[in-house]
Amino acid sequence: MNSDIAQLVSVALYSPKPDESVAFFHSLLGMEISHREGQSVYLRAYEDFYQYTLKITEAAEPGLEEITWRASSPEALERRVKAIEAAGLGSGWTDQDYGHGRAYQFGTPDGHRMKLLWELDYFHAPPELKSKLRNRPSKRPLRGVPVRRIDHVNLMVSDVPQNRRFMTETLDFRLREQKIGDGGVEVGAWLSVSALVHEAALMRDATGARGRFHHVAYWYGAPQHLLDIADIFSERDVLIEGGPAKHGTTQAYFLYCFEPGGNRVELFGDTGYLIFDPEWQTVVWDVANEVDLEKSSIWFGGQLPRSFYRYGTPVVPGHGLVEIGR
Amino acid sequence: MNSDIAQLVSVALYSPKPDESVAFFHSLLGMEISHREGQSVYLRAYEDFYQYTLKITEAAEPGLEEITWRASSPEALERRVKAIEAAGLGSGWTDQDYGHGRAYQFGTPDGHRMKLLWELDYFHAPPELKSKLRNRPSKRPLRGVPVRRIDHVNLMVSDVPQNRRFMTETLDFRLREQKIGDGGVEVGAWLSVSALVHEAALMRDATGARGRFHHVAYWYGAPQHLLDIADIFSERDVLIEGGPAKHGTTQAYFLYCFEPGGNRVELFGDTGYLIFDPEWQTVVWDVANEVDLEKSSIWFGGQLPRSFYRYGTPVVPGHGLVEIGR
Amino acid sequence: MNSDIAQLVSVALYSPKPDESVAFFHSLLGMEISHREGQSVYLRAYEDFYQYTLKITEAAEPGLEEITWRASSPEALERRVKAIEAAGLGSGWTDQDYGHGRAYQFGTPDGHRMKLLWELDYFHAPPELKSKLRNRPSKRPLRGVPVRRIDHVNLMVSDVPQNRRFMTETLDFRLREQKIGDGGVEVGAWLSVSALVHEAALMRDATGARGRFHHVAYWYGAPQHLLDIADIFSERDVLIEGGPAKHGTTQAYFLYCFEPGGNRVELFGDTGYLIFDPEWQTVVWDVANEVDLEKSSIWFGGQLPRSFYRYGTPVVPGHGLVEIGR
Amino acid sequence: MNSDIAQLVSVALYSPKPDESVAFFHSLLGMEISHREGQSVYLRAYEDFYQYTLKITEAAEPGLEEITWRASSPEALERRVKAIEAAGLGSGWTDQDYGHGRAYQFGTPDGHRMKLLWELDYFHAPPELKSKLRNRPSKRPLRGVPVRRIDHVNLMVSDVPQNRRFMTETLDFRLREQKIGDGGVEVGAWLSVSALVHEAALMRDATGARGRFHHVAYWYGAPQHLLDIADIFSERDVLIEGGPAKHGTTQAYFLYCFEPGGNRVELFGDTGYLIFDPEWQTVVWDVANEVDLEKSSIWFGGQLPRSFYRYGTPVVPGHGLVEIGR
Repeated sequence: MNSDIAQLVSVALYSPKPDESVAFFHSLLGMEISHREGQSVYLRAYEDFYQYTLKITEAAEPGLEEITWRASSPEALERRVKAIEAAGLGSGWTDQDYGHGRAYQFGTPDGHRMKLLWELDYFHAPPELKSKLRNRPSKRPLRGVPVRRIDHVNLMVSDVPQNRRFMTETLDFRLREQKIGDGGVEVGAWLSVSALVHEAALMRDATGARGRFHHVAYWYGAPQHLLDIADIFSERDVLIEGGPAKHGTTQAYFLYCFEPGGNRVELFGDTGYLIFDPEWQTVVWDVANEVDLEKSSIWFGGQLPRSFYRYGTPVVPGHGLVEIGR
Repeated sequence: MNSDIAQLVSVALYSPKPDESVAFFHSLLGMEISHREGQSVYLRAYEDFYQYTLKITEAAEPGLEEITWRASSPEALERRVKAIEAAGLGSGWTDQDYGHGRAYQFGTPDGHRMKLLWELDYFHAPPELKSKLRNRPSKRPLRGVPVRRIDHVNLMVSDVPQNRRFMTETLDFRLREQKIGDGGVEVGAWLSVSALVHEAALMRDATGARGRFHHVAYWYGAPQHLLDIADIFSERDVLIEGGPAKHGTTQAYFLYCFEPGGNRVELFGDTGYLIFDPEWQTVVWDVANEVDLEKSSIWFGGQLPRSFYRYGTPVVPGHGLVEIGR
Repeated sequence: MNSDIAQLVSVALYSPKPDESVAFFHSLLGMEISHREGQSVYLRAYEDFYQYTLKITEAAEPGLEEITWRASSPEALERRVKAIEAAGLGSGWTDQDYGHGRAYQFGTPDGHRMKLLWELDYFHAPPELKSKLRNRPSKRPLRGVPVRRIDHVNLMVSDVPQNRRFMTETLDFRLREQKIGDGGVEVGAWLSVSALVHEAALMRDATGARGRFHHVAYWYGAPQHLLDIADIFSERDVLIEGGPAKHGTTQAYFLYCFEPGGNRVELFGDTGYLIFDPEWQTVVWDVANEVDLEKSSIWFGGQLPRSFYRYGTPVVPGHGLVEIGR
Repeated sequence: MNSDIAQLVSVALYSPKPDESVAFFHSLLGMEISHREGQSVYLRAYEDFYQYTLKITEAAEPGLEEITWRASSPEALERRVKAIEAAGLGSGWTDQDYGHGRAYQFGTPDGHRMKLLWELDYFHAPPELKSKLRNRPSKRPLRGVPVRRIDHVNLMVSDVPQNRRFMTETLDFRLREQKIGDGGVEVGAWLSVSALVHEAALMRDATGARGRFHHVAYWYGAPQHLLDIADIFSERDVLIEGGPAKHGTTQAYFLYCFEPGGNRVELFGDTGYLIFDPEWQTVVWDVANEVDLEKSSIWFGGQLPRSFYRYGTPVVPGHGLVEIGR
């Protein structure tokens, strides 16, 4: 897959309960704390190669601070910056964040904050975290059910086609799967820059709000680990929204839950399927059709509740988990 | 990963027992037969998108007929053909094989036959094989423990550096992992054109022979399936050479066996790890060092027998499975 | 566990679509057909040691024909027959069924037909089914996702305490778990004669009907196999009622589906937990309490639909799957 | 299964490195420390119902202190004590150990110390360990890959038939499986008092020594957990002797390792198969026959090294792991 973007680097989230949020990712999902600075804590999964993939910052409301992408080369970075500027969505260069070099900031049409960069810091394990596996950046932790690496991000948008076009035309993503609903309205898009079916998904915000965050996903790679973490969540009052179950779209074996700050987190039990075909034709699910509607969301394993389509962060008044009926 | 090659399309093997070979892939590994022509049978796994990924042809000896790669674009195909011609290893264009358009044939320095193409036929499921999963090219079969897709190919070579340079410089692969043995001799190389750690591996042929075939690998994605197929193999006299166990290199959870024609087949129980970093630094295992020697081959799960390094197809006299002590 | 009953031997079901029912158990669940006689087909899982564990007989309506139990010894058989006769529920001896010796027939207070015996026929594999595992009565099949052995039976009853007392006092089962609902009404009972948490469960029939059948369960032992069979069911129009998910009661990782004749079948993904304590205190779930209500049915993995409590076989008019909303 | 013995309660081991031994069971296998007293630490797995199942006591050499069994009833206890006394192997009553009531001490013919009792203390979870699963005695821990319960014990004996007869005739075990070697010599016996294939195994000590300990086994129930713990062991210098692999005898999916004190520990990845048949015929493996020899030890997954048959605790001079070649 030849794209000017190489990968998802990290997701920065706001949490009104930062200590509890960090404890969730550290103790239950086994993530390592790389750094603390100001009101922020930086974490990584044990097979994440860079300095961090998650940043938790204290704030009054949960939600997305920023998503960081890495370009495929210095030249690709320049090309994308020009495209973003041409689209009128750029905010200029910054070099202020921990673990990253110079980065270009911008927003999606819906207003989600993003950053694109080439230079960044690799994680170098201190002796006590060093693995004997030369291709593993740090030892498998002994806490909780440890996730292996960041996988993707999902954004709620007020207008799927507009934001999807920004992702494909301006950012050079490929459209891998798509859901078309009643009246031909595009309600979901799965986009990627690699063999993964998605590093980014866009779904229509059923509340009509703009620029909200749906979830960040971390990857396990073994289906059993979803059963293990679900067992732990049920025992420790972590709310599971859906799963363990299998999506039709992406074929992911998934579990959705909420971290204590209120942001949704997805855990990914296997790889789904991978795309190597350079002429990939977008898989289109016609969700006005009942079979596609049912099979695309849940291939097996129960149902996704109403909250899945209405709850995002920050929370829209009247659409909190309690009001939706969770 | 921006490479002029997009993916491994198919592997063509010779078998002295073609009916038994086809029965092995069809009944035990659940592959579908797409086509029969002359002395050849074409098969695919249920999540392979093209017309076939395996071709079995009757011959006096087992071994490799040909490996087919797909370029990233028509332009990429032209670039690579020029590079191959410049290397003096090209054999010219052909359009004679089933399911493929015009293709350029060539050999590796060691003499393994390969083919590069852009045009090829997709598999279109007949109604009885059509899946309700729009991203799955055909229904999950009810036979054996069905593999999901082709994963990679492993070649034995007389000279690793020479063949590895051909793969990276002429074919545009990236070197992901490497084993360096006594005296700094390179004894293994793992190469890829996507997020997979390898679509091709090269390993030194301990017999000194040239151009032999080590194995083709099919992917399951769920560790349990290696236990299932191992149970079936043990019950039905299929010789398991190693595994289920986990390699250090690539982190694959693997099983090696022999199909009835004598060619080695690997089954891949999970995804190992994936590479998204555009500046990936080759992971180097120093197998003159005892820890690396042990951990790179087998991270856990027993040992690889002598045959793993000496048995390939065609068989070198004196190095058949019986002589090696299997 | 010292009980006069040793184990569940077999379940005999009626099916209005016997050919399709047999095809379901044979092709998808990989069971072997042991025998055909009159309108009946006899099947076994590949690790069932006796001649059959399932009998399918053609009839106008789905439902239970009979459940067969084996006593712990000839003396235990005599003791239980006396107890059944004393309870006024016996129907006398028979020696007419295939694969069984002399058996004593009786009914539960609710009218479910049962049979108790000592003598029965073991399965002796013909050469083509013989396993190299001396503790496995026949080879692991290559069809579908093969179940390993019969596990338990679940009966809907009009009055749980009455039927539960019959099971414990007359048949010598132990009460392992229990659900108590509003007003102290017992709504569910899990009973066993071995380390299993249950070979028999009783649940209150929400329709008030008597003597209906809820489900028979077959055992996989590996959680992945529930994902595998769910994938196959979703692709082939087999209705999944609930799961793969984990019950709180028994801690079973389960999936419920309907065989084509309309009877419910449970597949058991692991062993749950086992009971070895000779003084086991019944685990009591207070389902008038909200936490227990939720956690006992589903520890994780979605919800059980209304049909789970109202649909049984034979079907009560107005409570078919369509009317219930499946 | 009607036996005068109900279950294995606990195993007490000596360790020359008690702190490291306890850390191994606590941090890697997730066991809870119930109690400390003198030079001893008492531990339990999170689904063990009694106060402890493992006792580690400091001593100069590793090895077995004692195995504790629970009788099926107070009367069964009396019957067995009489039988043991009649066999001349009793040592009298004691009520001195933590968590146990009055117990009768004795030795096997080979000299392994054992204890039989009826009264003992149940574990009652403090609030912070209390599970919402009413059938789970304490929360699933967040440390390592937590084992669920004690499973069985394996003893090395100088004379299998003599010790096996003591187990069946004096202690009321049933002989489930058996290995017969050259010249009809019995080299292994698997014995149980429940549906498990074994709570006790006896294997011939190839060094000819008497009364040594081979291993204690803890149960996971999910095959993936053996891969998880193997990954952790490989990273942290815990020596894996064999597996993850599947035995033919018992059909267990196993892993053998050594705790830091030198005692062998088995981890059990699934349930193998269960025995409910009251007339069970001992499964006899003829290990003078090559197929049975190979298939009984390892059904799939590599080989068991020489140490498996020669290394036990306490260590026989000349047969330590280093001398044997590990």
